[in-house]
This record gives sequence, C-alpha cells and structure tokens, in this order.
Amino acid sequence: MKVVKFGGSSLATGKQLEKVLQIVKADKERRIVVVSAPGKRYDSDTKVTDLLIQCAQAVVNGSDYSPYLEEVLDRYASIAKELDLSSDIITNIKNDLLDLINKYSNKDAFMEAMKASGEDNNAKLVAHFFKTRGLDAIYISPKEAGLIVSDDPGNAQVLSESYDRLYSLREEKRIIVFPGFFGYSEAGDVVTFSRSGSDITGAILANGVKAELYENFTDVDAVYSVNPSIVTQPKEIKELTYREMRELSYAGFSVFHAEALIPAYRAGIPVQVRNTNNPSASGTRIVSSRNNINGPVIGIANDKGFCSIYISKYLMNREVGFARKVLSILEDYHISYEHMPSGIDDLTIVLRQDQLTRKSEQEILTRISEELQVEEIKVEHDLALIMLVGEGMRRNIGTNARASTALAKAGVNIEMINQGSSEVSMMFGVKETVVKKAVKALYEEFFV
Amino acid sequence: MKVVKFGGSSLATGKQLEKVLQIVKADKERRIVVVSAPGKRYDSDTKVTDLLIQCAQAVVNGSDYSPYLEEVLDRYASIAKELDLSSDIITNIKNDLLDLINKYSNKDAFMEAMKASGEDNNAKLVAHFFKTRGLDAIYISPKEAGLIVSDDPGNAQVLSESYDRLYSLREEKRIIVFPGFFGYSEAGDVVTFSRSGSDITGAILANGVKAELYENFTDVDAVYSVNPSIVTQPKEIKELTYREMRELSYAGFSVFHAEALIPAYRAGIPVQVRNTNNPSASGTRIVSSRNNINGPVIGIANDKGFCSIYISKYLMNREVGFARKVLSILEDYHISYEHMPSGIDDLTIVLRQDQLTRKSEQEILTRISEELQVEEIKVEHDLALIMLVGEGMRRNIGTNARASTALAKAGVNIEMINQGSSEVSMMFGVKETVVKKAVKALYEEFFV
Repeated sequence: MKVVKFGGSSLATGKQLEKVLQIVKADKERRIVVVSAPGKRYDSDTKVTDLLIQCAQAVVNGSDYSPYLEEVLDRYASIAKELDLSSDIITNIKNDLLDLINKYSNKDAFMEAMKASGEDNNAKLVAHFFKTRGLDAIYISPKEAGLIVSDDPGNAQVLSESYDRLYSLREEKRIIVFPGFFGYSEAGDVVTFSRSGSDITGAILANGVKAELYENFTDVDAVYSVNPSIVTQPKEIKELTYREMRELSYAGFSVFHAEALIPAYRAGIPVQVRNTNNPSASGTRIVSSRNNINGPVIGIANDKGFCSIYISKYLMNREVGFARKVLSILEDYHISYEHMPSGIDDLTIVLRQDQLTRKSEQEILTRISEELQVEEIKVEHDLALIMLVGEGMRRNIGTNARASTALAKAGVNIEMINQGSSEVSMMFGVKETVVKKAVKALYEEFFV
Repeated sequence: MKVVKFGGSSLATGKQLEKVLQIVKADKERRIVVVSAPGKRYDSDTKVTDLLIQCAQAVVNGSDYSPYLEEVLDRYASIAKELDLSSDIITNIKNDLLDLINKYSNKDAFMEAMKASGEDNNAKLVAHFFKTRGLDAIYISPKEAGLIVSDDPGNAQVLSESYDRLYSLREEKRIIVFPGFFGYSEAGDVVTFSRSGSDITGAILANGVKAELYENFTDVDAVYSVNPSIVTQPKEIKELTYREMRELSYAGFSVFHAEALIPAYRAGIPVQVRNTNNPSASGTRIVSSRNNINGPVIGIANDKGFCSIYISKYLMNREVGFARKVLSILEDYHISYEHMPSGIDDLTIVLRQDQLTRKSEQEILTRISEELQVEEIKVEHDLALIMLVGEGMRRNIGTNARASTALAKAGVNIEMINQGSSEVSMMFGVKETVVKKAVKALYEEFFV
C-alpha cells in the first residue's frame, strides 16, 4: 500500500488532474491520495489558499469579501469545466464557504477553517473527478478518519492516538482521497499544520496505515545535488537518507520542510519524490540507510542570512560555565544558535540573523559584555553557510582537503569550518557576497 | 629596566650561577633578578623543591626527616663550595629550615613555607654570591616588597594593591634578587603560586616596576615551531604574540604555563625567552602584536588525552536551550569542555578525558540521555588535538587547504576541524595513534 501526495501545482488545472488520475491508476498500490489546494498555474498566479486568506480577512474586517469568494470559486469552476464535471460540485463548494462565512464568530477558528477549506474542497472535487472516470474513490475527512491534533493553530502536532485509528483506513476498498494540511482538535475544531502541511498529512497517513512507500509528487524530476539557480542542470540525486535530506533542507534545499517527514521517518517508511509532469522519471528516494556508492558528497546546500557573535576573553577556556552563561542570555531572547566554534580564549556563535532586532542585538551584546566581563565582542552580519552533505563522508580521507583546495583556488576565504559532529556533513561559512562562487567551485570539484 | 628570571636548571650548580652572574653583569638594565630553587643537574637528579616536599612530609608524618634535610643542605653546600662562598650561608639556610621545622603546627602553612624556602634561600645565596663578585646586590623578600596574594595555597593570585607597592622597587639602586614562586597572604603567611610559580613572580614584578622587558632564562635557545621530540631540529620562533604563545602552550607547548604571563600581558611588556647556557642566542620574543611576515603558520602544537561525547537527536537544532542543558550537566561535575562542534541534529563535546572517571562518565551519559531524551550518545576516547597557530592565518586564503591536503596525503583521517573563532589558530582532531604522522606532515608542509 502506497500513500501518494500531490502538491498544489499538480492540482492547479484540469490538465494536471488528468495526469494525477493516470498516475493513481497506473499502480494498484496507490490507495491513499493526499491532496493540496490548487496551486499556481503560472508564476504570477495566486494560490487558492492565499485567495481564501484574503477572503477570510475581508470577512473579519467587515469589508466586501465577494470578489475574493468569486475568485476562489472561479478557480474550482475552471477545473471542473475543463474536466466536464457537473456544476453541482461548485455549488457544494460555494455553499460550504458561505456556510463558514455566515457562522463566523471566533476569528482564529474562522481563519483556520477557511484556510483548510482549500484542501478540503479540493479533495472532494478530486474524489468526484476520479469517480466520473471510473475509479472507485471516496473522499474521507480527517475528522472521520480520526486525525486528531493539538490545538495549536498553524502549528498543529499530531496526537499519537491518531495512528491507531488511521490504521483502519487499510480496510477501505475504495481509493481514499484525503485533504492535506489540517486535522481536528479534540474539541472538534479545524487546526492547520505548519508550512508544507500536506506533506505532513501524507507522512502521518503513511505512518498510520504502515504504507510500504510514501510517494510525494511535485513539479521537479528529482532532488538536485545543488541549487539549480547557481549551477545549471545539476545532477539529480537518486537516493539519499533522511539525515542527508535533513541536512540539505536545513541549509536551503526547499523540497521538504524538515519536520514534514518525521512521521514517515519514525516508521522507517521510504519517501519517493516524483514529478507529476514526468511520472516516468524515477525521482529521488529518501531512505533510512543506503550504501555509500556515490562518492563522499551527495549534495551541496547553501543558505544566507546568518550572523556571528565573536566573544574573546583571556583564559576563557578555564572558566567552567562560560559558554553555558552565554547561551542562557540568548535563551532569554528565545534565540537558537546554529553553530558555536570555539578557540581557547574565544567563542563564536553563529545564528540566523532574522532572530535579532537592532535593539535585541545591542541588549545581548551589552549583557554578555557586562555579565561575563569579556574583553572583546563583535558581530559580523551577512554570512552564508555551505553544507557538503553525504553519508560516510568522514570515512573518506581527504574530503576536506578537496573542498578547501577548491575554495582556495576560487579565491574564496573560509570564515569558518565546522566538521566533526555530524558524520554526514561538513560546513563552511563564507561571506554572502562570495557564496555563489564558492558553491560553483565545490560543485565542480565533487560532481563534474 | 629589565626583570630577569632564571629557572631551576640555570641555578642548579655553581657553574650555572657563574653564567647567571655574567648575564646579569652584561646589561645594566637587568636590575631585578627572580630566582627559582636549584633544579636538576642531570636528567635523573631531583629538584630541591621536591626534596623539600619529601622532608616536610617526613616532619608531618613524624618520621625521620634528617636524611632529606641533609640532602637539601648538600645541594646548597655543593653550590657554595663550587663558588668559594663562606660556610655561613649554609649555616643560615640550615637554621632557617630547622626553625621552620621546630615551629611546625599547622600542616598546610608548614608545607607552603617549606616549599617556598627553596626559592627563598636560593635568592639569599645568589645575592650573597653576587656581592662576593663585586655586584652590588640585595635580597628582597616578597613580604618586604609587599607582594600580597590571595590565601589560596598552591594557587595564589596576586592582589592588585601589590602593584603600586612593587613600583617602589624602582628606587632601589642595588641589584634586587627576589625569590620566585610565592607571596604573602594579608595575614602574613607564605602562599605559593601554581606550577611555573617563578615565571608568575617575574611577570608580576615586570608589571609592578613597569619594566621595558621581562627576560626569562631557561635551557633552550628558543621556542621551537613544533615539538622537537616529533621533528628533529625544528625551526626556532623569533617572535610571537601572547595569543600565539597561549594557543601553543594550550596544546602542549611547555615553555610557559598559560597563566604565568598574564601580569606582563596586561601591562603590554614583552617577554624574551633566552638560554642561560647560550646567552648570545637571541631567543624568542613574545609581544602584544607583530607584523605577519613569516607565512601563515608560526607553530604547530599537539596534545593528547582528549575524548569526545557525541549526542544525536532528531530536530535538536530546533530545541532552544539544548546545548545549554548539556553544559549544565557537565558543570555539575565541574567539567570544562574544550570544543563543541555541532551539526544540525547532533553535538559533539570535546574535553580532556582526565576530568572523567569511569563512574562520572557513565553518570553523565545517563543524565544527558534521560534528561534530554537523546536518540544516541557515545564517547570516543584517546583523541589528540593539533593546533596550527599563526596571527593573521584567517587572512591567508588556502591555509586549511594546504593543511588538510598534507594530512590526506599522509593518510591521516581528520576526526574534527574547528576553525572560525580564533583568528590565530586552526584545530584538527585526530586519533592519538596517528598524531605524530599528522604533525610531521603539517611541519613538512608549512616549514620545510
């Protein structure tokens, strides 16, 4: 049994839905289909979810929401028309939305329900479409299936008791079409997941029904070994581990949001990333472990927007508790750090700079300076991190030599190196201004 | 005005004292001479300080101390005889020691006074010797000079009010011979400094009298660029900064104990390391800053006896406070860590393994495991750290590339790299079994 998830761009038009139908029909094991709301049809298009948020905001503000509502309905209607579906389906969606709007009382609950309706109505539409084409499909709602989540709007966490209930979905003989992005609180309210919410729903269902595979259809042929906006036509990754995926997505790879795969990871279920627009491409498989056959480096990720706080104090090294005290000050500002390389008398803390305001930055520097009696403290902004990722990299003597030689030849100064904790990655910090040059040089070294 | 300190091997025999005399006479600015107790005359010899400790221990145990006392007196007597000094000086030393022994009541105070007597009596002997050779010299005791320290036996810290009093030593026209290794508490008791205590005394006096230079005479021509037991006849370092010295001594260079130079460092006084047995050699100068003219690397230090604790937990990176909690647990065991490289979902803590017992190691692992709910935790023992040290290393693109390429060619696997905090060093962690091979390869790369 496979759980198959389709992203918004795979469901944006009737033509896309035809592809989805063929994909589902092509493999009898594809028994649970998780759908997003219709996404963008072209670059400047607006996602249905964003239209729904605008509509809901208008309702909350007491302004005229009807143009937004029309636009939402038009999107569904154009798909229905393309697919020759009965107009009943659009009437039902309209009634559903008007019903939500008319019952509006609590703002947060209303916003959640409106946002989730994009997936929910799309799942109904897709189930209907499947049926008209002879597939025995059924829409099942998260409430009915027992997908119960914490009451944490926009960041719901699945409650563990859900998994047992979801297991009974295995008994359904029809193809299940399931809306992504949300579950229900114990009180019975709609609560949405975070970003990439439909990916989360798919991973939860895969875990619940103990699927053999979780197929995630998107609009790229595979996970690429490097950001295609820096290197043209980079190599595709055929297979990578959860840890490799996590390290890559941490540092800028956007295929999956890190948390999305946890339920599948916990159950050891492999994930196959595939392209709705090119289903014959084998895609990228994410697995628990793999044989290290592709050389030390499988991918190069990079991310901007970091800063470093450098702290120096003679004999810092002898002060038991020094770093702990610095971290406590950061914690007071709810700041998490990324890396903390240290010398003997100095310590550098690397963090995402969007966590700091000009004011909190100044306060933190002052507190560290005064409370820890440091000799020097300074901040460097606009750093980029580059991660070389690959299982077993450490067992390969010379990976760092190759990487740092490539960077030196390209004239890139390394501000920072962090190797030694993760066995699957090596991190280089460079100034943002040279990050593209650095990534290109590393790609040349390891992939060309 | 220069403060000149002589180590134990420079004062072990009459012949050595003759060299010391010539050195002091050779430069009119050498006005304050800090002396250690007589050290070893040959490899298997015993230092006078160690004889004094054995003697004091016998007194404390109520056993026969006279053989030890004899041995101590013999050492001074052989020096006096070699130099044709009057036997009064030995009688005075004997009376001083017997006086201490007869007044024995409090064990700690007694041990401190006996230990310190090695330097104290030697200073008296050296002053007497200088006078017999026509040098107008005077013994001055730390009490008389006002060198007041905290009452922390074996780890005394100079009290800041001492410096003003010591400044008046400038007015003394005679050459001052001053015993190293100890000061007096505010209650008037002898309290010794830590290891390398005479170096500390010299640095304190240099600071107090605002010396232009602190000359530290020992038995090597210079600070070498690498451990001479690994590389034969390594290059000498002509000039290095305090920070470079500190980084080198942290990782195994034994010329100075790290804390010893702080008082001179604070006052910006340069230190010249010279050889009593070869005073024409220019030695090594330790300064506050230097021009970076000798290539990126000035020295390669290495030290053994480290271990690493590896901790892994999925999404660790998102847990604000994770590292702080780990460090708090270590702090409960008074353990200081050296380095803490981190991945996204993992953290490695490198520490000196002599801080751990089998029992405390197990307790720490259990606490981290249970309190932080980690997925994996493991310890690796017997690691060595190698430090490449040099001011301005970071400004030199490619230092890491050269180092890691040299290590790769030598077949050395790098367990860990830490670069990015200190601007004057780069750290590599390797297994102890390959450290010599690694250091040789790095020396070849940067110095040959």
